[in-house]
Amino acid sequence: MHILITGGAGFIGSHLADALLERGHRIVCVDDLSLGTEDNVAHHFHNERFTFIKLDILNTADFNELFKQHKFEHVFHMAANSDIQAATADVHLDLEKTFMTTFSTLECMQNNKVKNIIFASSSTVYGEQEKVLTEDTGPLFPISLYGAAKLSSEAFISAFCEQFDMRAWIFRFPNVVGERATHGALFDFVKRLRENPRHLVILGDGTQRKPYLYVKDLVDGMLFGWQHAHERLNCFNLGVESSTTVTTIAQMVIEEMGLKDVTLRYTGGRRGWPGDVPSFKYSLAKINALGWKAQRSSDEAVRLAVKAVIGKLRGA
Amino acid sequence: MHILITGGAGFIGSHLADALLERGHRIVCVDDLSLGTEDNVAHHFHNERFTFIKLDILNTADFNELFKQHKFEHVFHMAANSDIQAATADVHLDLEKTFMTTFSTLECMQNNKVKNIIFASSSTVYGEQEKVLTEDTGPLFPISLYGAAKLSSEAFISAFCEQFDMRAWIFRFPNVVGERATHGALFDFVKRLRENPRHLVILGDGTQRKPYLYVKDLVDGMLFGWQHAHERLNCFNLGVESSTTVTTIAQMVIEEMGLKDVTLRYTGGRRGWPGDVPSFKYSLAKINALGWKAQRSSDEAVRLAVKAVIGKLRGA
Repeated sequence: MHILITGGAGFIGSHLADALLERGHRIVCVDDLSLGTEDNVAHHFHNERFTFIKLDILNTADFNELFKQHKFEHVFHMAANSDIQAATADVHLDLEKTFMTTFSTLECMQNNKVKNIIFASSSTVYGEQEKVLTEDTGPLFPISLYGAAKLSSEAFISAFCEQFDMRAWIFRFPNVVGERATHGALFDFVKRLRENPRHLVILGDGTQRKPYLYVKDLVDGMLFGWQHAHERLNCFNLGVESSTTVTTIAQMVIEEMGLKDVTLRYTGGRRGWPGDVPSFKYSLAKINALGWKAQRSSDEAVRLAVKAVIGKLRGA
Repeated sequence: MHILITGGAGFIGSHLADALLERGHRIVCVDDLSLGTEDNVAHHFHNERFTFIKLDILNTADFNELFKQHKFEHVFHMAANSDIQAATADVHLDLEKTFMTTFSTLECMQNNKVKNIIFASSSTVYGEQEKVLTEDTGPLFPISLYGAAKLSSEAFISAFCEQFDMRAWIFRFPNVVGERATHGALFDFVKRLRENPRHLVILGDGTQRKPYLYVKDLVDGMLFGWQHAHERLNCFNLGVESSTTVTTIAQMVIEEMGLKDVTLRYTGGRRGWPGDVPSFKYSLAKINALGWKAQRSSDEAVRLAVKAVIGKLRGA
């Protein structure tokens, strides 16, 4: 099939390109390279089924032109701001990079009669809730602008599906870790411990506990849901049953870096930052019932990711 | 208190201005007059507690300037596209008039440390669901761009509240009728029967059944919720227990216009138009528990509104 990936040179988008090419599809990746890098997809440059185009998809005229040149059957919309904390400094970031890119994608799809969208949503749409989060859980009051932009994207995808006879697969991601990540707690820890191997400051009280999904498992789950779910609008939580605390991540980083006698200092409070959700219970019953489960546990995912980050920084 | 109403010359905004002035507040109404009219608020022009300013609030620089000149304590954000069907012709309409006006309002509030927002949301955020709709109902997959823009607005309001220590009152409106309305089924029926008093075409099969809330009851409910609910984020369904079918509306219009032997023709299908939700069950338990109930039934509201529309068109 002929497939477009927006944000295709980014952390998750590039792993998705790997997997789709492996399965024999033809891929066009667009990316504005604000977070993604050509390095992430350079290993496909020789592949005739792969095309990379540097493009800001908020430029609707150029984006529309791309749709005219290709006959895309499916669009994986991965382009987004991926740094939840960045909104504190700029309230336009999630609005533009996450929400407006979705609207632009939907508009170009509608103009060019492309009917199938696969969207990278997030557990942050749920805001902070005590109950076990299923896909049908309400209310939806996100506490970060990141989550607000993801929920807004879902809302417009849903309306476009109904109004313009499109179909959607919405996947709500937990924290995702692995090769090519550009930020996140473990990434920060490695960088800061390289600067100062004796002290590490941890935001919050360290007990924030989240499921970390390995990026290759995430991509596997998305492709599984996409192939096996056939409603007009298909929404799935993706994740892993187990979870990992921030303190455990710090300990793994310290271990893998071979450091000793590192003093951990906690800034305190249950949130790492305003808008951080300290813990949540994510039901995976729906995707499990369809026949999918993550291969790695949360701890295994973090361990793999820590090794990858350390390896990459050593190589750099 | 010093209060800003966006969309303050519109259908609901102008009734809100009436009620807030009656209660002794100082009001600034802004409106771009795309749907609102100066006529709707002209009766307050002599009132020194009332100011009207023609302003497109998407012009953030001018809007921000207004916030600088005044010390608003509360902002009632009513500015929005109010015509659900219009999106079929222009997908940007709800995005800009409903969602981007909300973002612009939030941004100016944040810049100027204004902490309280009251938002006109909608039952359309729920999409089409069989179950009884409480404020906690999920999933939220709107089927109209109108509903998508309302849900997106809620999402960003929620995130701004958490990130910037603001408070919000979100009211989800059903169909609202009364003086100064600019469209809706009953409005159309009157206009079309004046053109041709023998035939009336009804979209759908006429059995679409919805609760119609009288605009003065709606405003009363909003002000009640605003005064009596004190959470950071307060969300209420507003409505009326009873409901009215489209065919009943047509019959009331025919009666009030004194017409006889009108042939009704139905276009068929359970939806009036793509994105129309043919019926829904709206729980009012939360606002009822707080101590509020609509004074008029749905049929009474429709009857009052029909008389108002006929009276106005006769006067014109």
